[in-house]
Amino acid sequence: MKRPGILFLVSLGPGDNSQRTFAAQAALERSKVLIGYKGYLLLLSPRQDQKIVASEIGEEEERARMAVDIAASGSDVSLVSSGDVGIYAMAGLVYEVLKEKGWLPGRDIEVEVLPGVSAFNAAASRLGAPLMHDFACISLSDLMTPWDTIARRLEAAAQADFVICLYNPQSRSRNWQLTSAQQILLALRSGETPVGIVTNGYREGEKIVLTTLKQMTAYPVDMSTTLLIGNSKTFQWDRWMVTPRGYHLEKIG
Amino acid sequence: MKRPGILFLVSLGPGDNSQRTFAAQAALERSKVLIGYKGYLLLLSPRQDQKIVASEIGEEEERARMAVDIAASGSDVSLVSSGDVGIYAMAGLVYEVLKEKGWLPGRDIEVEVLPGVSAFNAAASRLGAPLMHDFACISLSDLMTPWDTIARRLEAAAQADFVICLYNPQSRSRNWQLTSAQQILLALRSGETPVGIVTNGYREGEKIVLTTLKQMTAYPVDMSTTLLIGNSKTFQWDRWMVTPRGYHLEKIG
Repeated sequence: MKRPGILFLVSLGPGDNSQRTFAAQAALERSKVLIGYKGYLLLLSPRQDQKIVASEIGEEEERARMAVDIAASGSDVSLVSSGDVGIYAMAGLVYEVLKEKGWLPGRDIEVEVLPGVSAFNAAASRLGAPLMHDFACISLSDLMTPWDTIARRLEAAAQADFVICLYNPQSRSRNWQLTSAQQILLALRSGETPVGIVTNGYREGEKIVLTTLKQMTAYPVDMSTTLLIGNSKTFQWDRWMVTPRGYHLEKIG
Repeated sequence: MKRPGILFLVSLGPGDNSQRTFAAQAALERSKVLIGYKGYLLLLSPRQDQKIVASEIGEEEERARMAVDIAASGSDVSLVSSGDVGIYAMAGLVYEVLKEKGWLPGRDIEVEVLPGVSAFNAAASRLGAPLMHDFACISLSDLMTPWDTIARRLEAAAQADFVICLYNPQSRSRNWQLTSAQQILLALRSGETPVGIVTNGYREGEKIVLTTLKQMTAYPVDMSTTLLIGNSKTFQWDRWMVTPRGYHLEKIG
């Protein structure tokens, strides 16, 4: 059998290339093939000798299979995700495909995960310092998760006073989830709780809004939007959102 | 008044310099002064013309004040944190110090937050794909947070089936919190739930353990350890930890 290539699972970070890690960039440069959603591949300025395999939204499983097959055929390949490939992104599908094939990473194929700046790290950096204490990340997409599971998580996070990061608040086919989430949270949190809304963080058309839980549905959101909802101690200060301390003195900075 | 410098709040990422972003590195290079915990400053290979202000663990507030004062005096300065400066780290203290002084970022002083790869992004990348679905991050340090708040968050996260990231599991002065957390979680989750333990991720002496909730206290942990506890669907496969799907088809990869 031909020696397999390395399958790099590469975090592109938020839109701006400067928010990518050196290690992720090195993996991209080492790859013979780059595979990913076509919207992102265009931003990568591939070299002439690199093959590009662009796919559409919704073709995630095929994309994972192709990346695995390309590596198995002997080429180093980067499968790319925006943000962090390990957070709600492509890494899981690749491991599921490998398991189905019975190909063990480290034995039958080399897989290297390159972590990155995910959407909520990026959003937090634009808003000030909202993530200084315990937080929960919840996707509002109910395409593959029952809404009652999502609702239960929203309730639990609000009750236990987590800062809450919301992913996938709305898409063309889903328009009621954010309002429903707001209602769940308003039953447990003050309407004045600060909420930061970041759309297209570090990309062209970046929009940053600082508002409140009561008002948060008054602004346009889409699949490129991350919402950060404060805990009971989070305050708004001019256009900044700050969750105090929870700075643990012993945690080295 | 002299034109103030820029205060960069810089995420160093996990130990390995290659896990830093280009933007963070550029901020470090632009700075006249680098300030941070001494253990991290040593890794930065500063230039001859850069001034180093190294401080001890426990001196976080003084460190934040000094960084603010240095920027106010006209020098570009990087205040550095390992991981992401915006996740349980120095960014919040800086905003609190500025508010106390009445200095508004963007008006009286320029502040730029450089996001990065935080400890749990890094840990996840070493374990496979554990963070493919909703997750909650909880610090077990009760130095500045009452234990009953922490316990309530552990319960809520377990009940609502979040993947759980634990920070600060143990220090020299705290040794019972992880066992107590385990007891809380075992009341609500199977003892066979996969748990990944990453110590010194991407640093010298990196240790990766894949175990179960029942067994997780059998391994040494310290302030450089992050634990990832699966949700009810997370599976162990050889030495990998995978949380299936929650891959949202509409989320572009």
